[in-house]
Amino acid sequence: MNILITAGGTSERIDNVRSITNHSTGRLGKAIGECFLAQGHHVTYVTTPQAVRPVNQANLSIIEIETTKELASTLLNQFEQQSFDGIIHGMAVSDFTTETTLSEDIFIEKLAAKLTNDNTLNDLTSLTEALYHSLDEIGQTVQQAKKIPSGTDRLLLFLKKNPKIIAMLRDHQPQAVLVGFKLLVGVSFEELVHVGSALLTKNNCDFILANDLEQIHDKQHVGILIDATGQTTTAQTKSEIAQLIVNKVEEKWRSQS
Amino acid sequence: MNILITAGGTSERIDNVRSITNHSTGRLGKAIGECFLAQGHHVTYVTTPQAVRPVNQANLSIIEIETTKELASTLLNQFEQQSFDGIIHGMAVSDFTTETTLSEDIFIEKLAAKLTNDNTLNDLTSLTEALYHSLDEIGQTVQQAKKIPSGTDRLLLFLKKNPKIIAMLRDHQPQAVLVGFKLLVGVSFEELVHVGSALLTKNNCDFILANDLEQIHDKQHVGILIDATGQTTTAQTKSEIAQLIVNKVEEKWRSQS
Repeated sequence: MNILITAGGTSERIDNVRSITNHSTGRLGKAIGECFLAQGHHVTYVTTPQAVRPVNQANLSIIEIETTKELASTLLNQFEQQSFDGIIHGMAVSDFTTETTLSEDIFIEKLAAKLTNDNTLNDLTSLTEALYHSLDEIGQTVQQAKKIPSGTDRLLLFLKKNPKIIAMLRDHQPQAVLVGFKLLVGVSFEELVHVGSALLTKNNCDFILANDLEQIHDKQHVGILIDATGQTTTAQTKSEIAQLIVNKVEEKWRSQS
Repeated sequence: MNILITAGGTSERIDNVRSITNHSTGRLGKAIGECFLAQGHHVTYVTTPQAVRPVNQANLSIIEIETTKELASTLLNQFEQQSFDGIIHGMAVSDFTTETTLSEDIFIEKLAAKLTNDNTLNDLTSLTEALYHSLDEIGQTVQQAKKIPSGTDRLLLFLKKNPKIIAMLRDHQPQAVLVGFKLLVGVSFEELVHVGSALLTKNNCDFILANDLEQIHDKQHVGILIDATGQTTTAQTKSEIAQLIVNKVEEKWRSQS
């Protein structure tokens, strides 16, 4: 099979010397990649600079990206060149990218100037509307400095939503067996399955691997693989998760072809 | 000599899965550390998980930290245990730490509620005061979620100032030869020296290594070492900077003792 794996965590630049980074060691992605390679499949592996990845070998192409935007353009480029039989989208992708950063002083100066132009501020609805309008304007028009000045007590960072990568996969590769990932923090098994199933349906995936940060430790990594019928299989370690995903993707691919 | 080096870049957690990270490969710190070790000095090397560092060897102790707060407590702890002859503070330290993160919707809801309680908003001075007060309250009281919700179009991150690490070094180690670092982006030689000298005076350093991100490339790394008399020496590579710092620190130390 021709497999695409995304792993690691994206970063979004704040300025020239700082980023917002999604933590991900890449260890689960590495295990999944090695497992597919061991079965003789070809793997295109898209990852981020800090993440571990499978060692160089035949049948493995590695592509490095940093931001969500770069991930999107890399995937679109791959989809023009290749048809994938399986896509394992494990990368921790930033939901938000930086819009602008400003000191409290400048923020308040700009906001106060906008609000005093308005004569209807004693009415809650108008005030709320004016605030939305002002934040839009500040977010979209205030230029980000090359390096954030350090001489202010409080900074405000405006972050805006990134496009959802998982939402574009099925459209571009309708034939692929598609595995998405969902990481939550401190929820029940039922909640994990519920949120994972909703994500599966919404993005037309074949499987979702749902996991909880509080159940990921050095040697343990609890992962619940959910299929389109709502059936779940639970694995206890990264290598068990990797083997489970490879088996299920192969099985699904055979049943389709 | 007994040398303390800080290198790498700190991160500040936003939530359980994201951080704001100061970029630093640690390569300059590694070069400086190796240069001191080669001269037979003992090095305590404080660094961050992602940064490269000198290889393990006799006379080298490595301590890993992540946040600015951890750096401060680690240094205070070291200063109780050891007296240093030289301190090379090269770590890229976050000027700000996260205070809270909230969706635009919640921010506006809270801000509007606070502002409508106030009857003097048509006057710019009162409005400005009310905004400072509201931001303080929101920043200090809104609880940060374990994982930022993804279902909002814009997020606001409140960052508050970290204590300046460089400002505490001289007080705790009056005998040490103290080298601070200043990184700017896209400024002139004169501006670099001006800002570097001001930092030296303010923090009672013996030297400041001033550098500009736009003059740091693969093989080149322009660094200007400024001393307390305002004299500057320019180096062109990381190994030249390392050698320069070791020479100047040794020389200064000999002249003091």
